[in-house]
Amino acid sequence: MNLLDRLKEKLAEKEGRMIEIRRYLHQHPELSFHEENTAHYIAEFYQDVPIDAIETNYGGQRGVVVTIKGGQPGETIAIRADFDALPITEETGLPFASQNPGVMHACGHDGHTAYMLILVETLAEMKDQLKGTIRVIHQPAEEVPPGGALGMIQAGVMEDVDAVFGIHLMANVETGKILYRPGNTQTGRAYFKLEIQGKGGHGSSPHTANDAIVAASSFVMNIQTIVSRRVNPFDTAVVTVGSFDGKGSFNVIKDAVTLEGDVRSMSEETRLLVEEEMHHFVAGLEAGYGVQAELTYSHDYPVLYNDPEITEAVKQALVEAEIAEILEAEPQPPSEDFAYYLKEKPGSFFYVGAKPSNGKDYPHHHPKFVINEDSLLLSAKAMAAVVTRFCS
Amino acid sequence: MNLLDRLKEKLAEKEGRMIEIRRYLHQHPELSFHEENTAHYIAEFYQDVPIDAIETNYGGQRGVVVTIKGGQPGETIAIRADFDALPITEETGLPFASQNPGVMHACGHDGHTAYMLILVETLAEMKDQLKGTIRVIHQPAEEVPPGGALGMIQAGVMEDVDAVFGIHLMANVETGKILYRPGNTQTGRAYFKLEIQGKGGHGSSPHTANDAIVAASSFVMNIQTIVSRRVNPFDTAVVTVGSFDGKGSFNVIKDAVTLEGDVRSMSEETRLLVEEEMHHFVAGLEAGYGVQAELTYSHDYPVLYNDPEITEAVKQALVEAEIAEILEAEPQPPSEDFAYYLKEKPGSFFYVGAKPSNGKDYPHHHPKFVINEDSLLLSAKAMAAVVTRFCS
Amino acid sequence: MNLLDRLKEKLAEKEGRMIEIRRYLHQHPELSFHEENTAHYIAEFYQDVPIDAIETNYGGQRGVVVTIKGGQPGETIAIRADFDALPITEETGLPFASQNPGVMHACGHDGHTAYMLILVETLAEMKDQLKGTIRVIHQPAEEVPPGGALGMIQAGVMEDVDAVFGIHLMANVETGKILYRPGNTQTGRAYFKLEIQGKGGHGSSPHTANDAIVAASSFVMNIQTIVSRRVNPFDTAVVTVGSFDGKGSFNVIKDAVTLEGDVRSMSEETRLLVEEEMHHFVAGLEAGYGVQAELTYSHDYPVLYNDPEITEAVKQALVEAEIAEILEAEPQPPSEDFAYYLKEKPGSFFYVGAKPSNGKDYPHHHPKFVINEDSLLLSAKAMAAVVTRFCS
Amino acid sequence: MNLLDRLKEKLAEKEGRMIEIRRYLHQHPELSFHEENTAHYIAEFYQDVPIDAIETNYGGQRGVVVTIKGGQPGETIAIRADFDALPITEETGLPFASQNPGVMHACGHDGHTAYMLILVETLAEMKDQLKGTIRVIHQPAEEVPPGGALGMIQAGVMEDVDAVFGIHLMANVETGKILYRPGNTQTGRAYFKLEIQGKGGHGSSPHTANDAIVAASSFVMNIQTIVSRRVNPFDTAVVTVGSFDGKGSFNVIKDAVTLEGDVRSMSEETRLLVEEEMHHFVAGLEAGYGVQAELTYSHDYPVLYNDPEITEAVKQALVEAEIAEILEAEPQPPSEDFAYYLKEKPGSFFYVGAKPSNGKDYPHHHPKFVINEDSLLLSAKAMAAVVTRFCS
Repeated sequence: MNLLDRLKEKLAEKEGRMIEIRRYLHQHPELSFHEENTAHYIAEFYQDVPIDAIETNYGGQRGVVVTIKGGQPGETIAIRADFDALPITEETGLPFASQNPGVMHACGHDGHTAYMLILVETLAEMKDQLKGTIRVIHQPAEEVPPGGALGMIQAGVMEDVDAVFGIHLMANVETGKILYRPGNTQTGRAYFKLEIQGKGGHGSSPHTANDAIVAASSFVMNIQTIVSRRVNPFDTAVVTVGSFDGKGSFNVIKDAVTLEGDVRSMSEETRLLVEEEMHHFVAGLEAGYGVQAELTYSHDYPVLYNDPEITEAVKQALVEAEIAEILEAEPQPPSEDFAYYLKEKPGSFFYVGAKPSNGKDYPHHHPKFVINEDSLLLSAKAMAAVVTRFCS
Repeated sequence: MNLLDRLKEKLAEKEGRMIEIRRYLHQHPELSFHEENTAHYIAEFYQDVPIDAIETNYGGQRGVVVTIKGGQPGETIAIRADFDALPITEETGLPFASQNPGVMHACGHDGHTAYMLILVETLAEMKDQLKGTIRVIHQPAEEVPPGGALGMIQAGVMEDVDAVFGIHLMANVETGKILYRPGNTQTGRAYFKLEIQGKGGHGSSPHTANDAIVAASSFVMNIQTIVSRRVNPFDTAVVTVGSFDGKGSFNVIKDAVTLEGDVRSMSEETRLLVEEEMHHFVAGLEAGYGVQAELTYSHDYPVLYNDPEITEAVKQALVEAEIAEILEAEPQPPSEDFAYYLKEKPGSFFYVGAKPSNGKDYPHHHPKFVINEDSLLLSAKAMAAVVTRFCS
Repeated sequence: MNLLDRLKEKLAEKEGRMIEIRRYLHQHPELSFHEENTAHYIAEFYQDVPIDAIETNYGGQRGVVVTIKGGQPGETIAIRADFDALPITEETGLPFASQNPGVMHACGHDGHTAYMLILVETLAEMKDQLKGTIRVIHQPAEEVPPGGALGMIQAGVMEDVDAVFGIHLMANVETGKILYRPGNTQTGRAYFKLEIQGKGGHGSSPHTANDAIVAASSFVMNIQTIVSRRVNPFDTAVVTVGSFDGKGSFNVIKDAVTLEGDVRSMSEETRLLVEEEMHHFVAGLEAGYGVQAELTYSHDYPVLYNDPEITEAVKQALVEAEIAEILEAEPQPPSEDFAYYLKEKPGSFFYVGAKPSNGKDYPHHHPKFVINEDSLLLSAKAMAAVVTRFCS
Repeated sequence: MNLLDRLKEKLAEKEGRMIEIRRYLHQHPELSFHEENTAHYIAEFYQDVPIDAIETNYGGQRGVVVTIKGGQPGETIAIRADFDALPITEETGLPFASQNPGVMHACGHDGHTAYMLILVETLAEMKDQLKGTIRVIHQPAEEVPPGGALGMIQAGVMEDVDAVFGIHLMANVETGKILYRPGNTQTGRAYFKLEIQGKGGHGSSPHTANDAIVAASSFVMNIQTIVSRRVNPFDTAVVTVGSFDGKGSFNVIKDAVTLEGDVRSMSEETRLLVEEEMHHFVAGLEAGYGVQAELTYSHDYPVLYNDPEITEAVKQALVEAEIAEILEAEPQPPSEDFAYYLKEKPGSFFYVGAKPSNGKDYPHHHPKFVINEDSLLLSAKAMAAVVTRFCS
């Protein structure tokens, strides 16, 4: 029986504990950048585990970084699980539903952490049979830009790392399927805010005022052409104005409007193009409508780029592990701060199906979001396959 | 000495009391439809005045209607003063500033009521020398649609009336000038609300949603063409979207937007045209963008139409009274619920200059709005001239 | 019998000749700036008339200026009739329809010239009974900017003139009515051309091109807000894009579009405001869409402003002449180069009803446009009344 | 020496004739659906070639279909070359430039036909060593929808065919590279025309007219949201309005505008979605602006879909042939009527680099478009490799 087979066996034996941990975390969710108890829980977990080092409050955040040194020299790989929750009021009706009102693990990070803790414990127990070094990144604050990854990286978590890996559970993918994708995989994201200052006035006298609602509406229509006419049709871009804050009195001309929005792209070129065009349209708005318009534009998460060679190796490892059906993923609209690790070092981020066995899934970030807990053991086995590929 | 000269003399003697009353009312402003104390104050005032009848809580509102019968038979005229205040926090710094936080007489209705009380007292004292009947309308709730005039009319205040008159103080017109205008004089007004229901979604996946902000922005741009292309250029119309309620999260596609707005017109034809075109564009919005859009459209105040013949008589009376410079007014953008009386009976609404003597005036409805108190006596004399024209 | 009565009598006797002249001119219409035969015909007419001076080819154009000196000293007045026709193919079916294919007197200038010739002949015959000087302006090229009036003025036709008068026949006003209007009466007009240069490209690759049609469409929508939001609602303005020249191949992105349009206004302030705002939106278009946009903007005809005092005198003269019903006119949408004379000297331009007796009228500039020939004598009498008012 | 090697050797010997044929065709280009001489030339070529059948005027068009039967039974494959030219005036300055003014082979179809003729001759000479049947499709009218392929198919050219193959020369790809792509490869295309009927009028009186230019501009802006908001960001769509025919007089409100445009898509779902949304916006235009709008919408060429399994076999055959560098292609924006064959039968369309040796290439359809003639032999060898893969 080879190393992976023994790992798989041991992990299977611990499946119950994985589920228990996941349920505990699910009951005690904490918002991004405020995960005090979760970080404490993780650190506690490792007290009796034969790891080689643990660092808490990593990078001035709630991050926990654990090191396992193999019995022989080799490469250093990093494996990451995130542990923050969302500002959502849970409506699943689960017996272990959130006890923290208004906060919910509605994106599966409870599962990520649960499988990771048991996997690391098991790897630690068998570390003599491993080569190289495994750095385990328990990361806070994935959900809220600028995200927790940046702080971890600034504190040095990617130094000496040769490759980095992560998993996301996917409630809309059948349990029993694992998806990989080489190249550009999840969108990069930018946030923008446009504060438009016109001039208020009486609803009956537009000529004495400068209507910010009309100016803002024109802007919304004009920026539709960024996607329709400026972006390469074979590339991907989304420009969403999610907020048009122009509430006022019906008979008073609105003096100011604030727009806020979200930009998605799948290439560096388009990421920069959209920002540039946005600035052009802001200049056009000021020149045409005589308003003052201040644009705040911040690039939040980059495009998540999986190294093709490493991803091919991950695919092979997963196929050979014979734990699930292995398929190529479509590009994914959401953004992920794992992308920051991949800008530092090559690696691969992949997806484990977690659709409930009744076939009825809710979207991530939905109050009724649930996962199939079978996905925990699958994730542990899948990451074990990747670890043994690179560290044995 | 003729009747008007005696009236002018008596009114001049009572100028100090007019100012006192005005300052009392200014200190105790009350919002439209909630003018309990003001109505009580008015009724109290008349207790020792030789009027012929008084009706309070007129039409189920706070209206007060007073009747004076002249010594000889003749026509019945109505004269009206409004007495409600506005939801504005006074910033005038006057020693008699509002004692009711957040409420202010910022439109001069305190002055209207003050001059009217003293005028009516004086007319009552001299009623033997008058012909016909004078109906005095102390009207509440001019500022808030549907306005107080409608209730007064429904309760019968215009029955048997031959002509109706009113005055508005104008802080932007020099004190010492009085303005009249025959025909269409103040705009008619409509209120609209458009509730647009699209479908929410993740900011990165517009195709699964239906963006209400884009639909609403397109609507705002399209309805600009009502004024620019559909209304006769020699007529007047204003279509203002005063509120675009589309605040949301930057990265969530907005599911619903509510627009509210204000329409002004100066002719019946255009008033109906704008409403019709608005319905067309709502239908176009639904058909084009696949949203549901519910339009609420209510005509608030009609166009204020001064009977040309009666207005000519008012002008002649004012000129002959030799109390001020008498000029023709430009059309006035604001709307006035006095327009309802003029839809019932012919009459004329005219304007008395009240610009502060330092020449520095603030717009009506401004927290620093002030009037020149010299305008009170001028108003009383002006209305006295009109009354004697028709009732002697 | 006073002077005017004798004039009216004489004019009535010559009514048949007026109609003959008008029909001759109607059969031989000539386009603006090309009225060679018409000018010749006019000069011929005067050969045996006891005028004091005639100048042809006035100001380097086809203008004819005739001078009559009265028997006594007095003021100098100018009276003007225009004589150019339009590029329209006549469809009236009249026995005296145009013999010049594609050219038609479809605006009544044939009538203007016919009544004027007979009137001037009659005035000349009675000149001993007149005071002062009458300058008769037979003006070419009213229909095509920059118009014939400018050239006449530059050549000195307004020098020493105290007041200037003109008449326009109105096919949509009942014959028997004459209309005057003091103040701003006909709109001022500007022409604009916007040449938008984007970048062509294959229809499937918008990102390599810069779509001039989208940019131009956005511009058209944005400039709707000049009228809807920037112009005083009590003023008048029209901004029409009459030509959007963007024809191309369906599958090629259009590189360039030319817009042409027309602006109308009724006040100097608004005339300048619209031009200024147009420049703003052009700058906004360039900044926003990255196209090059060259704006040509020329003010053609100014607002036609009738001097109120002189217009009151005209009105009195017309009323006292007892030749027609005299009414105040509404403002008139079309522009008129008579406005240039009125920028030089005070005066009044008024309107003589010419609706066909069957009540069926077609708009000016329509291929079926006809006038009631009774309006010729009425015009002659009306202008005679004005002349005698100022010159006797 | 195996079959393919012998084919390659023979083809290399005939390279000069390939070039001669190509140059002859280049000198004598003919427009789509009018390729009389070219079809005749092709038929003539085959007179002494040991083919098994030839059909001319195929399907009522200028198509020529040639059949070669191998020495042994096997599958039937079809190979296609198109032969029409474009309405472009050549500016290459080549000694063998077009002798047909205004017509030019600016897309490489001369090369397609030249390599194909020599390849088929060679295959015919060696047919005893082949298995199965080769159907050679010389197709007219690829450039102009509905294209020549449909007629060929309707006449039966795809009956009994097991797989179909074609090549396109690519002047922007280095000579020496051959590109394949599985799945959706070239866009599908639709043509639309929108005839908008408003109501004309005088430029100064928009309220009496219904401005078709404003309505059309609003439509252009609104349909930008089809790509920006309705199409899946990971799919591809282009909606181009290539023609906005709204030329008119600057001071006349335009009564009618015709838009024409081009739609590209890469999936059946999006192809149908765009059409549906276009209909919605047309309905919205009519409802909102009160114009009549008639939409003509025709799907021209479908998405070109290469069968993944067959494409993998093509790739293998090309790699093993050792004739060029074999790479995966990006999706291609242009449309191709070869897509119709692929809707009937599986197959693969692939791309042979033809960039001039000086490295300076012009786009297809450009008056200076040139190809590197080395690409002819490469194409012949490449198709020979595919034929031997499937027929030996």
